[in-house]
Amino acid sequence: MSRSTAGPGSALGLHRVAEPAGVLPQAAWRLDPSPAIWPDEVRVRVDRLNLDAASFRQLHEASNGDPDAVRAAVLQIIVSRGKMHNPVTGSGGMLTGIVEEAGHGSPLGLRAGDRIATLVSLSLTPLAVTDGLARWDGRSEQVPCDGHAILFGRSIAAVLPGDLPVPLALAVLDVCGAPALTHRVVSAAARRLDRPVVAILGAAGKSGTLSAAAASRAGAGRIIGVVRREKEAAALRAATAAGQLSLADEVVIADASDPVAVSGAVRDAGGPADVTIVCVDAPGCEGGAILATAQGGTVIFFSMATSFTAAALGAEGVAADVTMLVGNGYVPGHAQLALDLVRAEPSVKALFENRLGDPSGREQELREDGDGRG
Amino acid sequence: MSRSTAGPGSALGLHRVAEPAGVLPQAAWRLDPSPAIWPDEVRVRVDRLNLDAASFRQLHEASNGDPDAVRAAVLQIIVSRGKMHNPVTGSGGMLTGIVEEAGHGSPLGLRAGDRIATLVSLSLTPLAVTDGLARWDGRSEQVPCDGHAILFGRSIAAVLPGDLPVPLALAVLDVCGAPALTHRVVSAAARRLDRPVVAILGAAGKSGTLSAAAASRAGAGRIIGVVRREKEAAALRAATAAGQLSLADEVVIADASDPVAVSGAVRDAGGPADVTIVCVDAPGCEGGAILATAQGGTVIFFSMATSFTAAALGAEGVAADVTMLVGNGYVPGHAQLALDLVRAEPSVKALFENRLGDPSGREQELREDGDGRG
Repeated sequence: MSRSTAGPGSALGLHRVAEPAGVLPQAAWRLDPSPAIWPDEVRVRVDRLNLDAASFRQLHEASNGDPDAVRAAVLQIIVSRGKMHNPVTGSGGMLTGIVEEAGHGSPLGLRAGDRIATLVSLSLTPLAVTDGLARWDGRSEQVPCDGHAILFGRSIAAVLPGDLPVPLALAVLDVCGAPALTHRVVSAAARRLDRPVVAILGAAGKSGTLSAAAASRAGAGRIIGVVRREKEAAALRAATAAGQLSLADEVVIADASDPVAVSGAVRDAGGPADVTIVCVDAPGCEGGAILATAQGGTVIFFSMATSFTAAALGAEGVAADVTMLVGNGYVPGHAQLALDLVRAEPSVKALFENRLGDPSGREQELREDGDGRG
Repeated sequence: MSRSTAGPGSALGLHRVAEPAGVLPQAAWRLDPSPAIWPDEVRVRVDRLNLDAASFRQLHEASNGDPDAVRAAVLQIIVSRGKMHNPVTGSGGMLTGIVEEAGHGSPLGLRAGDRIATLVSLSLTPLAVTDGLARWDGRSEQVPCDGHAILFGRSIAAVLPGDLPVPLALAVLDVCGAPALTHRVVSAAARRLDRPVVAILGAAGKSGTLSAAAASRAGAGRIIGVVRREKEAAALRAATAAGQLSLADEVVIADASDPVAVSGAVRDAGGPADVTIVCVDAPGCEGGAILATAQGGTVIFFSMATSFTAAALGAEGVAADVTMLVGNGYVPGHAQLALDLVRAEPSVKALFENRLGDPSGREQELREDGDGRG
């Protein structure tokens, strides 16, 4: 591999694919994490990996909860694949670090010394660790480490804000695609309709909370928050009462995987919805979301547990003329918009801090929230 | 089950779910196919099942190609589940028959004696057969049979046109959601952009051909047809030359599952595309479709082989700001639009007849085309 010039496809990292040849970095079995950079690449000194929740859970279970075995497994994946790409779950996570060197042709606008978080998945990010993960106890998704990673021309990274604690900023950035796409879709609906109704399944989770705030800003007329448990409902009501922005005009409790219950609850709360947003990271929520949505409305699926065929055949099976969007995690300006929501809205910040500080909330989040995309 | 009054949810067929309770008919293990109808139901005398291609292939392979074993397997599924819902593939197919009785509250507009095809999947349609499938040789997806099926208030059925051969009409109706949604999306793009570029992956298949015709009518400025083989390219070029409507301004040959090849071919042919339509029924086409699409553009996934996570993470992984739509098979007026395209455009009709009459084309279609949705 010559590193003197950028060839076609270098912005995608094709030159870093070691095997099999010709695929994109995410589809590759192994990447080349060599530290020397191409002109449009950036090398980051990594200080922390934030493993995707599904990946950590799988590793934890496969190791029977033995933290040393979990650490050995993660190390083995990184060494053999040149990236932290769990072969079972297919997911990765994100990382934080300091920019060490930015190629002169990099379009990312980063400078040496910038403290950043990556917003593309670890499953496509060349990575090498040099400390054997010795500082990690193997007991949580947060992996302190020393090593380097490579960003491509089309990678996405955010400079970590100085005014927010790192764990909070990371939690926000992890789901920042959701509020950005929600804002776009609800804004479009608000131009077409007078005060559109927005339903959010999993409204008390991280992506749900931010999506609710974004929907409110974008001109939603009525926000119906659907949650599974009374505890979540209470937290959401309290946050709404405390804040300036309405996170939920109605909070209803229903099992999102029960289509009759969800659609009934949304209708009773002022639905059907013009826009329904699925932030529940559990399978089987397609039918309820479709039935809760008005004819001509839109469903955005942010949950990685969404089944394409269940959505497609489910809508057809009930003659539902709804637009169904795959929740693309990239929308220009997404990091800024999400961080601004947290800064501007104390209720959102409080809900996040509450979840970060509460182990039961954290566990809840693993099951309920459409998080940990990568 | 009382059949004297329609209760809440009856339009969805919830009252026909035998087990497990509370799920939608498609998710049910077993439906009740009793012939007595509720006020908003329709009973159809069935004369033919059209099994989904994936389902037939699975049954054929599981039976080692023994046609008697295939017939026994289909019969066993129908008897045990009350619907032709292949438990392995999850898919069904469609049926044709004559309306026997329409409840006074049915919104479908059908009358006794109408010859119809169902446009909702067999996987959610209560079905009973009375002839043991004795007239079926077990060698093709077309299953002549005697029995009855039930349509719900929200089922979809089309009266078969008198001016088109039944096999042709069925083939068109099987994929009629694709041209309808294509028409809607390309029309919107044409209002925003001057002569939008449309790329169709799998352009020579059934859904691809109809989508191309719909895109052309909706104001596409340039249609780039992507096919796998020279034979398909030749057929598409010949049809375009013969017709009034442009089915493809450029025809390019590329493997849709090779993202670099597909995106390069589309770019070289005048792309990137403002709208990309995926009609290739093979896995791994998400990356190529995303990369072939301009920033701000739209990808419509009609293929049932689409992976939700591959689409979501794939777009995020290359910072692609593209709107990704789950190809909903239902759009109001879809059957009429598709039949009208075939009637009006000799080139489309010729391509369909060619495929129906050509066993190798048929085999090709099983592999390449985004067909047999349900």
